[in-house]
Amino acid sequence: MTDPRHNIRDVFPPTGTELTCKSWQTEAPMRMLMNNLHPDVAENPHELVVYGGIGRAARTWEDFDAIVGALRELEADETLIVQSGKPIAVIRTHADAPRVLIANSNLVPHWANWDHFNELDKKGLMMYGQMTAGSWIYIGTQGIVQGTYETFAEAGRQHYGGDLTGKWILTGGLGGMGGAQPLAAVMAGACCLTVECDETRADFRIRTRYCDEKAHSLDAALAMIGRWTEAGEAKSVALIGNAADIFPEILRRMQAGEPLPNGRPDIVTDQTSAHDPLHGYLPRGWSVADWRARQETAPKEVEAAARASMKEHVAAMVGFWSAGVPTLDYGNNIRQVARDEGLEDAFAFPGFVPAYIRPLFCKGIGPFRWAALSGDPEDIYKTDQAMKELFPENTHLHRWLDMARERIAFQGLPSRICWIGLGDRHRAGLKFNEMVASGELKAPVVIGRDHLDAGSVASPNRETEAMRDGSDAVSDWPLLNALVNTASGATWVSLHHGGGVGMGFSQHAGVVICADGTRGAAKRLERVLWNDPASGVWRHADAGYPEAIACAREHGLKLPRILGT
Amino acid sequence: MTDPRHNIRDVFPPTGTELTCKSWQTEAPMRMLMNNLHPDVAENPHELVVYGGIGRAARTWEDFDAIVGALRELEADETLIVQSGKPIAVIRTHADAPRVLIANSNLVPHWANWDHFNELDKKGLMMYGQMTAGSWIYIGTQGIVQGTYETFAEAGRQHYGGDLTGKWILTGGLGGMGGAQPLAAVMAGACCLTVECDETRADFRIRTRYCDEKAHSLDAALAMIGRWTEAGEAKSVALIGNAADIFPEILRRMQAGEPLPNGRPDIVTDQTSAHDPLHGYLPRGWSVADWRARQETAPKEVEAAARASMKEHVAAMVGFWSAGVPTLDYGNNIRQVARDEGLEDAFAFPGFVPAYIRPLFCKGIGPFRWAALSGDPEDIYKTDQAMKELFPENTHLHRWLDMARERIAFQGLPSRICWIGLGDRHRAGLKFNEMVASGELKAPVVIGRDHLDAGSVASPNRETEAMRDGSDAVSDWPLLNALVNTASGATWVSLHHGGGVGMGFSQHAGVVICADGTRGAAKRLERVLWNDPASGVWRHADAGYPEAIACAREHGLKLPRILGT
Ligand SMILES: NC(=O)c1ccc[n+]([C@@H]2O[C@H](COP(=O)([O-])OP(=O)(O)OC[C@H]3O[C@@H](n4cnc5c(N)ncnc54)[C@H](O)[C@@H]3O)[C@@H](O)[C@H]2O)c1
Ligand SMILES: NC(=O)c1ccc[n+]([C@@H]2O[C@H](COP(=O)([O-])OP(=O)(O)OC[C@H]3O[C@@H](n4cnc5c(N)ncnc54)[C@H](O)[C@@H]3O)[C@@H](O)[C@H]2O)c1
Repeated sequence: MTDPRHNIRDVFPPTGTELTCKSWQTEAPMRMLMNNLHPDVAENPHELVVYGGIGRAARTWEDFDAIVGALRELEADETLIVQSGKPIAVIRTHADAPRVLIANSNLVPHWANWDHFNELDKKGLMMYGQMTAGSWIYIGTQGIVQGTYETFAEAGRQHYGGDLTGKWILTGGLGGMGGAQPLAAVMAGACCLTVECDETRADFRIRTRYCDEKAHSLDAALAMIGRWTEAGEAKSVALIGNAADIFPEILRRMQAGEPLPNGRPDIVTDQTSAHDPLHGYLPRGWSVADWRARQETAPKEVEAAARASMKEHVAAMVGFWSAGVPTLDYGNNIRQVARDEGLEDAFAFPGFVPAYIRPLFCKGIGPFRWAALSGDPEDIYKTDQAMKELFPENTHLHRWLDMARERIAFQGLPSRICWIGLGDRHRAGLKFNEMVASGELKAPVVIGRDHLDAGSVASPNRETEAMRDGSDAVSDWPLLNALVNTASGATWVSLHHGGGVGMGFSQHAGVVICADGTRGAAKRLERVLWNDPASGVWRHADAGYPEAIACAREHGLKLPRILGT
Repeated sequence: MTDPRHNIRDVFPPTGTELTCKSWQTEAPMRMLMNNLHPDVAENPHELVVYGGIGRAARTWEDFDAIVGALRELEADETLIVQSGKPIAVIRTHADAPRVLIANSNLVPHWANWDHFNELDKKGLMMYGQMTAGSWIYIGTQGIVQGTYETFAEAGRQHYGGDLTGKWILTGGLGGMGGAQPLAAVMAGACCLTVECDETRADFRIRTRYCDEKAHSLDAALAMIGRWTEAGEAKSVALIGNAADIFPEILRRMQAGEPLPNGRPDIVTDQTSAHDPLHGYLPRGWSVADWRARQETAPKEVEAAARASMKEHVAAMVGFWSAGVPTLDYGNNIRQVARDEGLEDAFAFPGFVPAYIRPLFCKGIGPFRWAALSGDPEDIYKTDQAMKELFPENTHLHRWLDMARERIAFQGLPSRICWIGLGDRHRAGLKFNEMVASGELKAPVVIGRDHLDAGSVASPNRETEAMRDGSDAVSDWPLLNALVNTASGATWVSLHHGGGVGMGFSQHAGVVICADGTRGAAKRLERVLWNDPASGVWRHADAGYPEAIACAREHGLKLPRILGT
């Protein structure tokens, strides 16, 4: 039997203004599904893997074809139902309803663990949707560059007076998301040493100019960092190695007073795929080839070895933290694994959200993104310009848009990301819709966001870590967010479990809406791009954050029990 | 501080044709919320508890008032967002969107246990929604009678050619739910011998006419059963005794060939509260008084004795099963206890869902219900009549409607339950809507269902036990169901966790739609009452049930990967 998840076919979304479906509302999800599997976008498109270990866009290739087939035929009052990457049903709804409804990787809590998931996945009954993989709004690494840039910049503001010149960041992982770290660090003004065990991953990042240099020994890498930090140059190096070896070794040198640039790393974090102990983290002392082979033949052994190594890795991070080095968990669940393995103070250092992102969430601010279905970069440049005109005071936004245009190559359909919140998102959406209507843009634009978001995620080790009222694990919020976006008329809506932190640790919802230039779309855009960020504001207002309560008041949200009626 | 969950106020829904909200679409959820707390409906209305231990309709009395206040003011294009019984936001949507969106008791899986829930509940951050409590469509005990009736009737169809005349059912327990058994059996045409250890429980059921006779010896009870079965009369007897004595003794007589009506019981089940070994099951050889006393003084001893007795009880059930007697577990976990006690073949006989309910689920059939917002019983009698005319061939339905009218008293707003599925539900909804439009009914009707349902529940120990493909724990399905009903335009939609099986063990969705006689409502009714049961059909078709695949084909469902396109 052939593997239903393997295919040598390359997928490219149609571009231009010709419809291949019956309307832009169905063309949009079809192009974005295909874009998720574009060779320049997906990590492993032949296996349907978009990013994040095993985050897929469709369950099998037959399912992919069936989804595309269904979208091609879908009418303006029909909706396609997709269950963990398999198209189940086409149903009659109405024009203001979503055209696609998606649920990925959801399991009843008592069974919501990797063992049970892997069993179902192997049987062909499930698919891991990650966050934007199974919800068809991954746009390559730009999104994560921006998020990582915001985080590093905020860390610089909090710990180094806003200036990261001559500082260096130690981290791990150059995968789909982690690969953004060197570029984001450099954009934020810092040097970066990233430990990556898979040389092909490092080479890819160097080829695309996300990372500057490569080294095969710690000494060589540190020598580069030493030169750059001294010269005040922001540059990055990928060190081929195992983070579980390198982190403890750097800590040892620091504690022993051996030579080290600045005497210590200035910021420590990690983006190995620790959330997935079977596929995501190379155990100490293993070769990459051996690891891949044994994932099939001896999965239990791989997991146990990976978990033990993560414990060492986190122990080193705790060591840095205890020595006063700003250290943060970047949402890969590595602290949880280390604690499960018996490292009691694994949660000594914070996650990046409570440390740096939550104040933004209180205003509904987070990674907003759009893609040009025309495939024409000019469409994005025009929206860049429109954003600047729409938000003339937001110099931070202007700076980002300029750097992004300069440093970030488009992958697949041209797209842009920036962080804006309640009150701004619907204005951007309406503006884009006008630009489509007037013909200024060649074709419609889709607008979505990551699940790293204010209102659509419950993830106690990441987005909702250490909530003020202790409501970290309450997942009513993401479920309501999906219902709200469905009721508001988004083009597609998704409900996921697991995402970046793995089975059992999060529930989250996605939303995408197509600005096709019609008046109907304008009404839906106004509702969706208001209600979606508003759900982030009210979730944080309910938890008692004063910034969120102020934001809700300022924008006139009706929150009967929070603001009174 | 006063308890925000206690109030001596009695709540009654408004009745009649005067609106107290701005439209029937908002009046409906308000009346149904209030009906859930009606003194004749709720178990403990002053504490906001509707049923099932701590299943509430609103988080606190202030929240109740705020929900009512918000519904009174809600416009035709607005939606109220309710998080675990607290009204959070009023947002702008559109006329075809739900007027209320609800999420109750949902927790991220790793934290989805009673300890964490209780902590949040105590802090005032959550509420237990049960199934129809927090989703405002509980209507009293009619539901359990009907469910049990359907189970017995289906057993009759499978094993006795659809005719239970002259047959008898052996069971245990006449408590809150189990007390429905004798009435349901008689309605299904069978005789019933229920073993109940607590005479007061038996007396209560005889007083309310749910049970016909009482006996103090097995011989006396069997003599009655013998007379009734011979005469083809459907009647019931409560035998005061211990099921752990009686079941083995009947088995012994059967095996020894001693005289027994029909030579054996025709169906065997049990509804003692075996799920709670301390309070729920009288150990063999103990008096009830002694048992109650020792629950306080020697709980460990009680549990051990109860568990040992359950093993005997289940061993007898396995004996019946092995001799070819249809035998079923009615969701009280007694097989699990017996297996834990060392009875290896405890799971030899099936649970009631896989045995009898699943074939119905395959056709989207399950507990459909409606309530008359007028408060007038005549409105329900008219719908009863309409149902008979709509489904002239469904004699099973006619029989139920006649018996229900005769034997079941209304509680709160008059309501009716019956089990119908895909292809029938939307016809009923449209008919009721016409009857509202024409003035035949005094006021609008709301239509909903239980979460014991084909497409809206993932509950591996109950509704999705032993699915054919092993997908018991996949909860994409209930989440999709809620999105589908939201997209289809239900009046209110809810997403719950825990329900009747407790924290961690289920996820499920509710839906209610108001037939207000308008053309807009007709369109929504047609979509919702088609798509909702269809979701049960496609969930089972995807799992490989031939009955579901056939049903999908027959009704022309578009299931690209199941039926082809
Ligand atoms: N929003 C967020 O919170 C957020 C953002 C970015 C990343 N993350 C998390 O970060 C992790 C990485 O994401 P990704 O998409 O880049 O995953 P990925 O699987 O594409 O990449 C992980 C990389 O780590 C490397 N690696 C594995 N074990 C290693 C080891 N022991 N030493 C050195 N390198 C090792 C792998 O070779 C791979 O290149 C995930 O867990 C993700 O969920 C979270
Ligand atoms: N949908 C479902 O899965 C479903 C439906 C109905 C009932 N149930 C289960 O059935 C059980 C009964 O529910 P309930 O609400 O009636 O409980 P209950 O506690 O109100 O009643 C149990 C009755 O059993 C009697 N009893 C206890 N031990 C006995 C013994 N050894 N012999 C004879 N009688 C004995 C008690 O006196 C009591 O009257 C529960 O475990 C419930 O979860 C499940």
